Amino acid sequence: MIVRPRPNAFIMLFSWRGSILPQIAPQLLFVILLSIIVALFEHFHPHIFPELPIAAFSLIGLALSIFLGFRNNVCYDRWWEARKEWGALILHMRNFARESLLLHVDVRRRVLHRSIGFTQTLNARLRNQNQMGIAERWLPTQEQHDYAEHPNPSDYVLLCIQRDILECYKAGQLSDICYQQLSSRVANMAGTQAACERIRNTPVPFAYSLLIHRTAYLYSLLLPIGLGSTLGFLTPVIVGLLAYTFFGLDALGSELEQPFGILENDLPLDAMARAIEIDLLSSLGESNIPKPLQPVNFILQ
Amino acid sequence: MIVRPRPNAFIMLFSWRGSILPQIAPQLLFVILLSIIVALFEHFHPHIFPELPIAAFSLIGLALSIFLGFRNNVCYDRWWEARKEWGALILHMRNFARESLLLHVDVRRRVLHRSIGFTQTLNARLRNQNQMGIAERWLPTQEQHDYAEHPNPSDYVLLCIQRDILECYKAGQLSDICYQQLSSRVANMAGTQAACERIRNTPVPFAYSLLIHRTAYLYSLLLPIGLGSTLGFLTPVIVGLLAYTFFGLDALGSELEQPFGILENDLPLDAMARAIEIDLLSSLGESNIPKPLQPVNFILQ
Amino acid sequence: MIVRPRPNAFIMLFSWRGSILPQIAPQLLFVILLSIIVALFEHFHPHIFPELPIAAFSLIGLALSIFLGFRNNVCYDRWWEARKEWGALILHMRNFARESLLLHVDVRRRVLHRSIGFTQTLNARLRNQNQMGIAERWLPTQEQHDYAEHPNPSDYVLLCIQRDILECYKAGQLSDICYQQLSSRVANMAGTQAACERIRNTPVPFAYSLLIHRTAYLYSLLLPIGLGSTLGFLTPVIVGLLAYTFFGLDALGSELEQPFGILENDLPLDAMARAIEIDLLSSLGESNIPKPLQPVNFILQ
Amino acid sequence: MIVRPRPNAFIMLFSWRGSILPQIAPQLLFVILLSIIVALFEHFHPHIFPELPIAAFSLIGLALSIFLGFRNNVCYDRWWEARKEWGALILHMRNFARESLLLHVDVRRRVLHRSIGFTQTLNARLRNQNQMGIAERWLPTQEQHDYAEHPNPSDYVLLCIQRDILECYKAGQLSDICYQQLSSRVANMAGTQAACERIRNTPVPFAYSLLIHRTAYLYSLLLPIGLGSTLGFLTPVIVGLLAYTFFGLDALGSELEQPFGILENDLPLDAMARAIEIDLLSSLGESNIPKPLQPVNFILQ
Amino acid sequence: MIVRPRPNAFIMLFSWRGSILPQIAPQLLFVILLSIIVALFEHFHPHIFPELPIAAFSLIGLALSIFLGFRNNVCYDRWWEARKEWGALILHMRNFARESLLLHVDVRRRVLHRSIGFTQTLNARLRNQNQMGIAERWLPTQEQHDYAEHPNPSDYVLLCIQRDILECYKAGQLSDICYQQLSSRVANMAGTQAACERIRNTPVPFAYSLLIHRTAYLYSLLLPIGLGSTLGFLTPVIVGLLAYTFFGLDALGSELEQPFGILENDLPLDAMARAIEIDLLSSLGESNIPKPLQPVNFILQ
Repeated sequence: MIVRPRPNAFIMLFSWRGSILPQIAPQLLFVILLSIIVALFEHFHPHIFPELPIAAFSLIGLALSIFLGFRNNVCYDRWWEARKEWGALILHMRNFARESLLLHVDVRRRVLHRSIGFTQTLNARLRNQNQMGIAERWLPTQEQHDYAEHPNPSDYVLLCIQRDILECYKAGQLSDICYQQLSSRVANMAGTQAACERIRNTPVPFAYSLLIHRTAYLYSLLLPIGLGSTLGFLTPVIVGLLAYTFFGLDALGSELEQPFGILENDLPLDAMARAIEIDLLSSLGESNIPKPLQPVNFILQ
Repeated sequence: MIVRPRPNAFIMLFSWRGSILPQIAPQLLFVILLSIIVALFEHFHPHIFPELPIAAFSLIGLALSIFLGFRNNVCYDRWWEARKEWGALILHMRNFARESLLLHVDVRRRVLHRSIGFTQTLNARLRNQNQMGIAERWLPTQEQHDYAEHPNPSDYVLLCIQRDILECYKAGQLSDICYQQLSSRVANMAGTQAACERIRNTPVPFAYSLLIHRTAYLYSLLLPIGLGSTLGFLTPVIVGLLAYTFFGLDALGSELEQPFGILENDLPLDAMARAIEIDLLSSLGESNIPKPLQPVNFILQ
Repeated sequence: MIVRPRPNAFIMLFSWRGSILPQIAPQLLFVILLSIIVALFEHFHPHIFPELPIAAFSLIGLALSIFLGFRNNVCYDRWWEARKEWGALILHMRNFARESLLLHVDVRRRVLHRSIGFTQTLNARLRNQNQMGIAERWLPTQEQHDYAEHPNPSDYVLLCIQRDILECYKAGQLSDICYQQLSSRVANMAGTQAACERIRNTPVPFAYSLLIHRTAYLYSLLLPIGLGSTLGFLTPVIVGLLAYTFFGLDALGSELEQPFGILENDLPLDAMARAIEIDLLSSLGESNIPKPLQPVNFILQ
Repeated sequence: MIVRPRPNAFIMLFSWRGSILPQIAPQLLFVILLSIIVALFEHFHPHIFPELPIAAFSLIGLALSIFLGFRNNVCYDRWWEARKEWGALILHMRNFARESLLLHVDVRRRVLHRSIGFTQTLNARLRNQNQMGIAERWLPTQEQHDYAEHPNPSDYVLLCIQRDILECYKAGQLSDICYQQLSSRVANMAGTQAACERIRNTPVPFAYSLLIHRTAYLYSLLLPIGLGSTLGFLTPVIVGLLAYTFFGLDALGSELEQPFGILENDLPLDAMARAIEIDLLSSLGESNIPKPLQPVNFILQ
Repeated sequence: MIVRPRPNAFIMLFSWRGSILPQIAPQLLFVILLSIIVALFEHFHPHIFPELPIAAFSLIGLALSIFLGFRNNVCYDRWWEARKEWGALILHMRNFARESLLLHVDVRRRVLHRSIGFTQTLNARLRNQNQMGIAERWLPTQEQHDYAEHPNPSDYVLLCIQRDILECYKAGQLSDICYQQLSSRVANMAGTQAACERIRNTPVPFAYSLLIHRTAYLYSLLLPIGLGSTLGFLTPVIVGLLAYTFFGLDALGSELEQPFGILENDLPLDAMARAIEIDLLSSLGESNIPKPLQPVNFILQ
């Protein structure tokens, strides 16, 4: 995620970092080049290209804007929902830390450590990173083997937490109400996992992306030819501005569609997982608390 | 559901699999052909077609874009809500698996097996597939007959689960709080069924689909005639691009409107039902766990 | 509600049943006729009508499209929320049927029968039908008199259910948790009633409907005059297509705004009330179970 | 709130009551007059006004439509949320009436009477009406003094209800679960108050209203000058239709933005507070039940 | 937040306070000046600038309007969600004040005082103000040190509240249900903090703001050049109106994006924190109750 103070209106015009520009530079340059060639041709050999009414292009352009707007809406909602889920996870963890004061101090340490392990496993899973061993240090030795083998390791960690709480309930250390309270926090954590997996595994219907992507590209390629005879040497400017907007929104939509990646505009999962680690460890009163992650080059991972 | 890595911007232009193109090819070709004929006529017998202002077509086209955008929004929301419900079902099942640790191990196996049966029955029901016998292997023998006869077999499975839990409560093996906790998971499952049935049984008001479908088709048929005299041989290109977008969004909307089918962009219910089966069986520690479903030709069922 | 398989793209163009066309036929014909007259005049006495720039009409037309889109959005949301509420009612009833297994079998029969009575009373109330006696057969004799006299008969039925459950609790047959569980299902039913009454009693602010209706009609009347001199004999076609879309969306919005009526696109309350009756009776194991309602002429009431 | 059967399409064109027209009549007449003057000038002294391309006005007009659409969306949402909150209040009251059967009949009468007092105080507060004494008759004598002095009198009423329930719990007449059930209904009532206060105290950011209001007015003033030379004597008609739509939506937005007022399109708080009074009194079996409020001149307060 | 009665339609046209105008005055003046220069040039040396079709600018302008509309929607939603969260906090505090009547009067005073401290710490944190010592007066002496040292001081305050309640439960002064009720209010407070932190720490993806900002500025700079030859001396008026709308919405979006600041349109956190203080102190029956904050120059902090 880009973290930077919003520069003033003028400086923003020349900001490169955090812009979508680098990603769409090749196709943008191609379209601008094409416009220049058309404009030159038109200058030296007038009337080679038919003089077309701009209204025809207006029509397609506006339809395209509406559909691009729809897709961006959808992709942004996915991104924001993912952020909400991680915000909720931070909340569930803090609540769990507070409410687990009910437990014996050893059990509490164990379940909170496991919760950190859950967070880190989930993070690795969502980012397609190697999950092997990532959370082993947070688990008791006897659980490490099963953890490594389990098809759904983060779910396994939750199972271990539940077992501990259940044992306390069966041993009479917790009333059924208190058992249920803690148990529902575990269900909350599972809820975040399920929601994040849903977002990660179910992209926007591919046919949408395809349809809009194609219309945007075909349209931008037609523009220079269609407008060249009317706009003359302003063609590259106008076409460039339009193509920049359309290509940019198309690319930005694709980036936000999968919010768990490591691209510039993706969510800072590492930083949020670290925040949970800090909260839980400081709630346990431990001494060895890591520092929050800081943005590097305005980018927070 | 199409599952494929997003190809790069260039390759996407020529992707066929997952495109809506095959479905709308006939009508698209017809419109393009019509445009070509009009353009030829216009070339050899100029002024046969009246020269019409494009603005008139702009107006209808934009109104149409707005209404198509509205319908796509609605259809996409149905599709995404259906996906959310199945994501929630996966979550409820995992929670149920964890929380049912409260039960005696035999009862737990029985209710979790029944939960798998519920999922598979629901899947078959939503996809209009033969439900006969599909979940019998997950039920105790004495329930199989009633299951096959029941007007609402998936609801019958939930009734059996509830009866088992209730018995445990009455036998004093569960406190009332714990009974209620498990009972509310059963209610969660019923909630997913009710929501999915709502989406499946209540299409977008037919008059909407009709109104928008008709406007889109009439408009695309009028376009070549109206624009032919102005655009000349570019007519087929411009008209083709517009018709592709309008027909495509119309067809895509219809496909997403009923998200439980087996078309390319529908939801992968089989794969999700399998995921639930894996989660529950591995939570029971059983050995005979099936593999996750894999996409075939980029399509996950 | 229209229930029909979506016909193929071609047949849909000529579908009459379920279309909004019959409702708007008079005004549509009037506008088309007007266009023909203008076109004829224009043909025999050219330049009677001033040649107006279409862009002026474009502008109003697009503003109108945006506001019509807004109103349709709002009306559709009301319709869908109403459907969701009835879907939730079906769910609450199924949950109540399952969870009421806690009760003595006689009490259970009584409260479930009353629940059917509640549904049918609510249905009649929402549809402005005669509620007299509609649910009496589902009530014990001693409650029938008060039911008939009560200002809010469906709420009275819920009160009777609550009283029965409360008695069980006071008699020690239910723990407080179980009492609360059943009591909250009664509150769920009341919730559906309140939400449906809200939708039914509070239309979209009348000034909105008025403003948009007027703009749509004035605009469609101006169109032939404004476009006649430019479009010639294509005027009736273009104007007809636009008026069809605008009148159609206006009429469709009005129909969906009140989703509890008995028009073609309204919700099938009778069928849903019947579904609840079937679910509850079969959950009681009764023998005399009615059949589900079937659509007549593609229409489900 | 306007309560009237939707008249047929033709009569609606001439409906005055419930229309936004009276509020915007002065500015609308001014703009139409201006258009007439411009048209006359143009007729007698052609070419005084420059012939401007309508497209420039189209552009501003459409941008304006989009932003007006946004603001109307936001204002309508506020209005509908306010209506939902009052619908929810009606529901909470009915639930409270039913669930308070747990209490001793004297306590029940006291808390339900106070609930009516709460509703009426909230109503007066939201409508900026004199709250003095409005609910005193519903309170026990010893609470009337504190009620009159309290900075937040409706909240004080809830406190009194809570105290009564708490006393019952402490006296062992209620189990903790039942105490919590009733207590959460009190929290529900407080929730409605908080939500309504939020809507009432936090208008749409003033800069939005300002920006859109200004653009709409400047635009409508520019229109006659800009279009006069092109449209001739149709200018007043076209400009009038556009100004009617823009002024109307601007004024309607402002009216819905504050839904608790007593303007024609505001919410019928008095009628809803009366409905609650009827429900609670009839649930207490009291004899002296008032009649529901009826609309006067199609307007329900 | 601007708090002022909505002035009448005429006066609003000249309102300065609360307008976004001051912020965008420099760039607006620049664009208008540019337009004047272009118009003068065009007057004295006609045909220096090419005569460009306005439709090309229409197209970009409308695409821009749609995307600006999208961004404003998103920013407004953030602002309104933040307001909802603080409204919810006010509600949770009132509920907590009422439900804490269960506690011993000393404990109650302690936890309510701490709740005020929590609010003020959260307020300072969200506004990036110095949190040092801000809430110390509301904490018992022995907690002040840890509070000052804690990485997350508002969360520490909640921990202290929870400990007190837990102690009461363990000492048998609270049943487990009542403990859970109070504990869930603490979780509610933590929920508000987590949601506010989410909004504060996660801006709208920077690339969006950048893309839309750039398009808006480039477009407004191109406008005078493109339209100068067509509009003549009306250029500054038309361009100024458009630039005012686009710059204004861009700037307003940026202001609402971070709703916790101290700009004119930001949320009045100080006033809401004061309201909570008043509610809690008056619920404790304390005498030393501060006055509500009043708007200064129509601005409430």
